[in-house]
Amino acid sequence: MAQYRVLIDANDEKGLVHKISNIFYNYDLNILSNNEFVDKESNKFFMRSVVDGVINKDALKSDIESVLPQNSSIKIIEPKKKNIIIMVTKELHALGDILVRNEAGELEANILAVVSNYDNLESFVQKFDIPYITILHEGLERSEHETKIIETINSFENVDYVVLAKYMRILTPRFVEAFEDKIINIHHSFLPAFIGANPYKQAYDRGVKIIGATAHFVNNNLDEGPIIAQEVIHVNHAYGWKDMQRSGKDVEKVVLSRALKLALEDRIFVYANRTVIF
Amino acid sequence: MAQYRVLIDANDEKGLVHKISNIFYNYDLNILSNNEFVDKESNKFFMRSVVDGVINKDALKSDIESVLPQNSSIKIIEPKKKNIIIMVTKELHALGDILVRNEAGELEANILAVVSNYDNLESFVQKFDIPYITILHEGLERSEHETKIIETINSFENVDYVVLAKYMRILTPRFVEAFEDKIINIHHSFLPAFIGANPYKQAYDRGVKIIGATAHFVNNNLDEGPIIAQEVIHVNHAYGWKDMQRSGKDVEKVVLSRALKLALEDRIFVYANRTVIF
Amino acid sequence: MAQYRVLIDANDEKGLVHKISNIFYNYDLNILSNNEFVDKESNKFFMRSVVDGVINKDALKSDIESVLPQNSSIKIIEPKKKNIIIMVTKELHALGDILVRNEAGELEANILAVVSNYDNLESFVQKFDIPYITILHEGLERSEHETKIIETINSFENVDYVVLAKYMRILTPRFVEAFEDKIINIHHSFLPAFIGANPYKQAYDRGVKIIGATAHFVNNNLDEGPIIAQEVIHVNHAYGWKDMQRSGKDVEKVVLSRALKLALEDRIFVYANRTVIF
Amino acid sequence: MAQYRVLIDANDEKGLVHKISNIFYNYDLNILSNNEFVDKESNKFFMRSVVDGVINKDALKSDIESVLPQNSSIKIIEPKKKNIIIMVTKELHALGDILVRNEAGELEANILAVVSNYDNLESFVQKFDIPYITILHEGLERSEHETKIIETINSFENVDYVVLAKYMRILTPRFVEAFEDKIINIHHSFLPAFIGANPYKQAYDRGVKIIGATAHFVNNNLDEGPIIAQEVIHVNHAYGWKDMQRSGKDVEKVVLSRALKLALEDRIFVYANRTVIF
Repeated sequence: MAQYRVLIDANDEKGLVHKISNIFYNYDLNILSNNEFVDKESNKFFMRSVVDGVINKDALKSDIESVLPQNSSIKIIEPKKKNIIIMVTKELHALGDILVRNEAGELEANILAVVSNYDNLESFVQKFDIPYITILHEGLERSEHETKIIETINSFENVDYVVLAKYMRILTPRFVEAFEDKIINIHHSFLPAFIGANPYKQAYDRGVKIIGATAHFVNNNLDEGPIIAQEVIHVNHAYGWKDMQRSGKDVEKVVLSRALKLALEDRIFVYANRTVIF
Repeated sequence: MAQYRVLIDANDEKGLVHKISNIFYNYDLNILSNNEFVDKESNKFFMRSVVDGVINKDALKSDIESVLPQNSSIKIIEPKKKNIIIMVTKELHALGDILVRNEAGELEANILAVVSNYDNLESFVQKFDIPYITILHEGLERSEHETKIIETINSFENVDYVVLAKYMRILTPRFVEAFEDKIINIHHSFLPAFIGANPYKQAYDRGVKIIGATAHFVNNNLDEGPIIAQEVIHVNHAYGWKDMQRSGKDVEKVVLSRALKLALEDRIFVYANRTVIF
Repeated sequence: MAQYRVLIDANDEKGLVHKISNIFYNYDLNILSNNEFVDKESNKFFMRSVVDGVINKDALKSDIESVLPQNSSIKIIEPKKKNIIIMVTKELHALGDILVRNEAGELEANILAVVSNYDNLESFVQKFDIPYITILHEGLERSEHETKIIETINSFENVDYVVLAKYMRILTPRFVEAFEDKIINIHHSFLPAFIGANPYKQAYDRGVKIIGATAHFVNNNLDEGPIIAQEVIHVNHAYGWKDMQRSGKDVEKVVLSRALKLALEDRIFVYANRTVIF
Repeated sequence: MAQYRVLIDANDEKGLVHKISNIFYNYDLNILSNNEFVDKESNKFFMRSVVDGVINKDALKSDIESVLPQNSSIKIIEPKKKNIIIMVTKELHALGDILVRNEAGELEANILAVVSNYDNLESFVQKFDIPYITILHEGLERSEHETKIIETINSFENVDYVVLAKYMRILTPRFVEAFEDKIINIHHSFLPAFIGANPYKQAYDRGVKIIGATAHFVNNNLDEGPIIAQEVIHVNHAYGWKDMQRSGKDVEKVVLSRALKLALEDRIFVYANRTVIF
C-alpha cells in the first residue's frame, strides 16, 4: 500500500468525474482527499486526488488517459521531498522561516543550497549544514553574473524549485527560461499594486492603509507571473516607509512559506496566468 | 431544464462518489458545482451537488437511495425563496442588514414577519412592508410570553427559519423543540468564550485583544448549538465595554447575514454538534 | 459645560504639546481624549483633542493661535450632525448600509438627499423619508448632466459631504472643484491596484487571491485622492469576476461607512495626498 | 545625546500631561514618540514617551515625581538588550521564530539559555551558540523538577523575562512567584476559550470556525494572566484537530514573538489583569 497524488488537468466535458471515479473504484483505491474545479470561462477541468492502494502507476495513468480528452495532463506522484535552491540577497527573515520550518518537518524539502550575491548570511545558513554559495555581482556584467548563477544551480541534479526569498536583483528572460515554471518569488507588495523597486516607499507615498506581500511564479514580465498566495496587514499614518518595510517582513515570510508548501505538496495548477490551488 | 440541489448525508463507504456520479451521468445532468466531504472520525459522507437537467425528482432520489447505505439522507431541492421569521429585541443593526440585503436581492428569503418583545423597531420594519408583531413580555410569565410567540410563529405557514437577530431573552427548551433545527441565533461573542449575559462586559473584564460574534443553530443548551459562522475584530486597551459593544455590532450583522445566506442556499449540514458548510 | 473637538494642524516645533496643554490647563478643560502625531518627513504636527468645559471659542482659538507657528490651522468644533448628500447609480448595498446606520444612530448625519442618474432606488430611499432626486444622464452631454447635479446639490444649504456610494459615472474637475475636500468615494478595488473601470474584472484577469475596497477623498486625478480606509477579503480560483463583485459588496459598504463615520466625527486630517486618522 | 523611554503609571488627575510636558520642555528634550491613555473606569493614567536629550536620569525622575500624585510609578529606561530565558518542551516553531528574529536583529534580546524538559531541540539551539539545558522531569516529583528549573534560571544574572515557548508542563504558584511579572506564555487557544489541556481538541469538539493563540503574562491562575496579544485564523469542517494544531503553529509563533517584542521594547503596562500597550 502506498499513497499517490493524482493530478489531472484537461478540457472539461460531461462525465469526467464519473469516468475517473470509476477507474479509482476499479483499482480499489481509497480516496483520502479529492478536489475538483471546473473553470467555466476557459472550459478547463482540474482534479487532485490523494489515493491509497497498490497500483501500477503506468497502467493507472494510461487508463485515466483513455477516458480523458486529448492533450490532457495526468501526473501520478509519490509524495517525497522535493529539491529546492533558495536565492537571497541580504535579508534573513524569509530564508530563516523556510530553514526553521524545514527543520521542524513542516516542509517536504531538501534544501540543496542557498545562493546569494552577498556573503552576509553565510554563517547563518551554515548552522543548518546547508551549502551557502556566494556569487558576488560586483565587477560582473549582469549576464556574466547570471550565467554563474545558472551554472551553479545546474550543478545540482533534479532541482524542483528555485525559491527567491528576497533576491533583490532583476532576473533576465534567459534565467526565467532556464528554470521555467520552477521559480517562486516573494514580492513585497500586494500585486499588482507597486510593481518594481521599493514598493514600501511607493505604498507610503500613496498613503495606503494596508500593505501586503505576494508569492508568485516568475515569468518574463517582472512581477506579473501567476499569483500563488497573498496576505496583507493594516498600517496607519504613523508608519513611515521603513516601518512598513519592517512590518512587511512578517507578511513576506508567511506568504512565501505558504506558497512553497503548496508547491511542495503538488497543490498548485497553473493556467492562463492564474493558479488553481487545492 | 431546471436546477436542483442534491444533498446527501450518509455513512461513508468506498465508491460512493463513483456510484452517485454514475447516476448523475445516466440522468444526463450537468454538474454546476460539486462538494464532498468525508469526516473520517465519524465515518460520515456529505455531498452537495448543484445539477441542471430534466428529471423526475422521485426517481432520481430513489435511484440514489439504492446505492447508498441504509439510513442515508437525500434531499433534492429546487432553489426558491425560503420563509423566515425574524425575532428582535431593541437593536436595529442585525435586522436592518437582513432587510436591506433582502431588498437588494442578496438573500433567497420571504420575510414573513418580525416579532419583538418591544415596539421600538416597528416603524422601521413597516417601511419594508413587513408585518411587525409586538409581544410585550411585561406582566407575563416567561411561559405565557413564549406561548404567545410560538402561536404567532405557528400562525404562519411553512416557516423555514426563525432568525434571532439579537433577540435578548432566553428561550426555553419548549421553544427550541417547537422549531427544531430551524432557529439561527447570533451570539455577541466568539463562542465558547463568554457564554451568557453581557459578553462584551465579560470580554472587557478579561482584557481580551480580540472580540467576535458567532452565528449558530440553537439547541437546548444555551449558546452551545452547532456553529455556522464566526468572525472577529481586534480591540485594544482604549476600548471600554461599550466601545466593544458598538464595534461588535458590525461583526454581529456580518456573521448573522452570512449564516442566514448559507442556510437559505442549503449549504449547511449539521452532525455531532458541528456543521459542514459547502 | 459643553464638548468641543479641537483640531490643530501646524508645522512642528519643540514644545507644541507643552504649550497647548498649558492653555487647556488654564482654561480648566477636561481632556476626554487626546491624539497627536508628528510626521517627521514633512515636519507637520497634528492634534485632535476632545475637551469638556465652559469656553469662549474665539478666545480659546486665539490663545492657541498665539503659541503656534504661523499658518497653522485651528478648528474648534461642537459635535453636531453634518449635512450629507449621497450619490448613487443603481446599487443598493452601500447606500442601504448608510441609511440603516443613520437610522440606528451610528452616524452623526443629516441625509439631505440621495441623487442618482437612475430612478430604480427611489422607492427604497423614500421609505426613509429622504428626498430622492433622479437626474437622468441619457440625452445629455456630460457637462450638462454635471451642471444639473451641481445645481441640485447647491440648492441645499451647508452641505458638508458629498458621498459617492457607488456612483458609477466619471466626475470632471469642475465637479471636484465645486465640492473641494468634501467628496468621499468608494472605489471597488484595493487602490492603487485596478484603477478605472470594472476593477473586479481586472482583478479576476490578474488572478489575485485578495480583493478589496478603498474609500478616499476625490481630487482631480481619478481614483488618486487621499485614502481614508481600506479593507480586503480573500478569494480563490473558484471566484469568477461576478463572484468577486458579489463578495466585494460587503467590503465596499463596510469601508465606505467607516470612512464616512470618521469624517463625520472630524477624525481625518489630509495633507500631501495622505490622511492622518485619529 | 541619548535616548530614553519614560514610563509613567499614575492615578489620573487634571493637568498631568501639561505638567509632564512642561518638565520635558524645561529639560529641552526632543519627544520622538508619545502615548498616553487614561482608563476612566479605574482612574489610571499611563504614558510612554521616547525622548532624546542630555539628562541626569535621577533628576528627571525626581522632577516628574514631584508633579504626580503619590504612589505613581516612573521608569526612565535606556534602550538596551534585555536578558531572556526561553523554556520549551518539544516543539520547534515558536522557539525557532524567536531565535531567527533575534539573529535578524528584530528583537532587543540576549538569549541566555533555552531550558527544556526534553533534549530533542538541543542540536537546533546549539546552532545558535545558545546554551541548551535539559532538565528531565521523569523520575522527579513536580516540585523537585521545578526547583531544578528555578535554580537553573537563578544561576543566570539579571533575567528580565522567562518566555514559555510551548513549555507544556503546568507551573506551580511557587514558580510564578519566583519570576513575578516576568513570565510570558503562549497559550494555543483564543483565551478564555479552551483553557487547559489540548485546546485544539476542545476547539474541534466544539466545532468552531476560528482558532487562535494568546500570549499573556502568567499569574497563579492557569491561563488567566493579563493578555498581551491574540491572533486567529479561520478553519472549516475539513480541519481535524491535528490540522488545527498544525495550522495553529503559525499563529502561536507570530503572537508570542509579537508579545515578546512589545515587552522588550517596554511597551506594556499591566493593571487590573489587563494590559495597556503603546
